[in-house]
Amino acid sequence: MTEFGFIEAIRTLCADLPRNGFEGIGDDCAVLPTGAGESLVFTADLLTEGVHFLRAATTPEELGGKALAVNLSDVAAMGARPVATLLSIALPADATQEWAARFMTGYHALAARYGVALIGGDTTCSQTGITINVTAIGRAPDGHLKRRSAAAADDVLFVTGRLGASGAGLRDMLSGTYDTPLAAEHRNPRPQVEEGQWLGARPEVHAMMDLSDGLASDVCHIMACSSVGAAIDLDRIPVAEGADLRTAACGGEDYKLLLSASRDAAGQLAADYRNRFGEPLYEVGRIVAGNALTWRRDGAEVLLDWRGFEHY
Amino acid sequence: MTEFGFIEAIRTLCADLPRNGFEGIGDDCAVLPTGAGESLVFTADLLTEGVHFLRAATTPEELGGKALAVNLSDVAAMGARPVATLLSIALPADATQEWAARFMTGYHALAARYGVALIGGDTTCSQTGITINVTAIGRAPDGHLKRRSAAAADDVLFVTGRLGASGAGLRDMLSGTYDTPLAAEHRNPRPQVEEGQWLGARPEVHAMMDLSDGLASDVCHIMACSSVGAAIDLDRIPVAEGADLRTAACGGEDYKLLLSASRDAAGQLAADYRNRFGEPLYEVGRIVAGNALTWRRDGAEVLLDWRGFEHY
Repeated sequence: MTEFGFIEAIRTLCADLPRNGFEGIGDDCAVLPTGAGESLVFTADLLTEGVHFLRAATTPEELGGKALAVNLSDVAAMGARPVATLLSIALPADATQEWAARFMTGYHALAARYGVALIGGDTTCSQTGITINVTAIGRAPDGHLKRRSAAAADDVLFVTGRLGASGAGLRDMLSGTYDTPLAAEHRNPRPQVEEGQWLGARPEVHAMMDLSDGLASDVCHIMACSSVGAAIDLDRIPVAEGADLRTAACGGEDYKLLLSASRDAAGQLAADYRNRFGEPLYEVGRIVAGNALTWRRDGAEVLLDWRGFEHY
Repeated sequence: MTEFGFIEAIRTLCADLPRNGFEGIGDDCAVLPTGAGESLVFTADLLTEGVHFLRAATTPEELGGKALAVNLSDVAAMGARPVATLLSIALPADATQEWAARFMTGYHALAARYGVALIGGDTTCSQTGITINVTAIGRAPDGHLKRRSAAAADDVLFVTGRLGASGAGLRDMLSGTYDTPLAAEHRNPRPQVEEGQWLGARPEVHAMMDLSDGLASDVCHIMACSSVGAAIDLDRIPVAEGADLRTAACGGEDYKLLLSASRDAAGQLAADYRNRFGEPLYEVGRIVAGNALTWRRDGAEVLLDWRGFEHY
C-alpha cells in the first residue's frame, strides 16, 4: 500500500465522523476557526530511523532542528504563525543521554529562533530505532489563511527560493559523502516562517503550500484541490547551485513555498517581497484551465513524465 | 536516563521559550484559553511495538482502539470534551494492508462512539516496528478545567472505578495467556469520557487526573503539584475482580479517574454520580497537609514502599 493509498483509505473510513468545527483534511494543516476572526492550524510529522534519517549521517542537533523545521514549514505554508509544538520521541537503549540532550539542543535552538512554545508530548523507550513525532500548532487571522484550493486560472505560480539543493544533498549522502554543502542543506532545512506569514497577509496570494515532495508532485495537489491545470516553464525553475534541473523539479524536501497569485498584482507582490526579504519570488509558470500539468521550454510544450519524490 | 529525567531535562532547557498563551507543562493536557470563556487542551501519546504492545498479543482493532483511548482519557481527566485527533503511524513492510485496515477499524469505532474528528496526521513506513502517535484536542469551558494543582488539605480522594484489572491482565499476558478477561481489559481500556466531562462541570471537584501509572504513583503528582500530602485507606481501594490489592494500588493503565473533592460536598457528589452513571465514586482516602503519602489500614498507618508502574 502506498502512503497516499492508506491516507485515502483512512479518509473514506472516517468520512462519517463529525468535524466538530474543523475544516476537512487536504491542506498542509487542519484549520479550527476559534471565533474571534482567528483560526488555529494543526499539523503532524513522523520521522523514523532508516527511512527519514540515518543516525550515522546526521548529527543529533541537525535531527532535532529538522524534526521541528518540517512542521514549522507546514504552518508557514498556511500563512500562519507557529506558536506551539508537542514532541513525542522514542529512544532505543543505544541512543545515549548525550544523544538525547544534543537532539533537544537542536530542537530548542529552532524553537527559540521562531518563538515557538513546547507544550507537551511523550517520551518513551524503543525496542528498535529512534522515532520522532512533532505536532505543531499555528495561529492566523482567518483572512490570512492560504489553502491549496484557492488557485484560479491565469494565476502566476511562484516559488520562494532555489530548488534541488536538498535532493542533490540526499544523493550525495546516499553515495556515502556527508560533508558537502548540499548534504548540509538536506540535513538543515530552514522553514520559511517569516515568508509564509508575510505572504499570508497578502490577499493577492491565492493558493500556497510547502515543497516537501518536489515541485512536480506538489503542484498537482494545488491542481487537484483547485480543479485547475498548470504550465511550468523549465527555463524559469530556479536551480540551486550544484543541483540539476530535474532534481530541482522532482527532488523532495526543499521546504520552499509554492504559491499562486493574481496575475494583475503579481509584479507588485514580487517587488514588495524582494524589498522585504532581499530575495526574489521566482515565477515558474501559470495556473491554467483544465486539469493537466504541462512543461514548457521557450514557450513550447515539452513532453516529460517527471514526478516528485515519493516519501513513503 | 529515566522518562522523568528526560522530561525534566527538556523542561529545564525549554524554560526560556515563550508560552504564547499556553499554560505550563504538568497536567494531563496543555491548555490554551481561546478567549470566549473556553479553552482548548492538547495531549500526545506515543506507542512503540515491543514496549507498549506485542503484535502477537493484541488484535489490530484492539491496538487502534487503545491508541485513541489513552489520549481520550487524558482529555477527560482535564474535564474536557475530546473533539479531534491527529494520528501518525509508521508501518513496517511486514504489517499488511489488512493489518492497517483493521487497526483503523478499531480507531474509527472509538472515535465514532465519542464523536471525535480525525483531522490529520502522518503515515510512513518503518524499517523496524510499528509506531503510533496520537495527538488529541479537547474543549471545555474555562471553569470546567481540572488541574493537578487544585487539591486542598481535607479534600476527599475518589477513584471512578475498580482498579488492578489492567495490571493483572498484563501479568497474564506476560505469562503467555492472552485469552483471559483481565488480559482483554488490559488491551481494551475504556476512557471515561462522559465521566470526566460530568466531573469537570462540578465545582466541588478540585484536582483530577487519569490513572495511567497506578494510584501509588499518580497520587504523588497531585501531591507535588498541589503541595499537599495524601493518606490512602488500603481497605477502601476498590480491587477489580481477579486482581490483588497491590496490583490495584500499583498497576498501571487502568485509565480510571483520580480526583479530589471538597469534603463538605463529597457525599452529594458521590450520590449524584451514582445517579448519573449507575456506579459509585469510590472514596479511597484524604488529602492532608504536608507532603507525604501514607497508607492506612483500619485507620492506622502501615509502612509500605509501594510505587506505581514505570512506563519508560
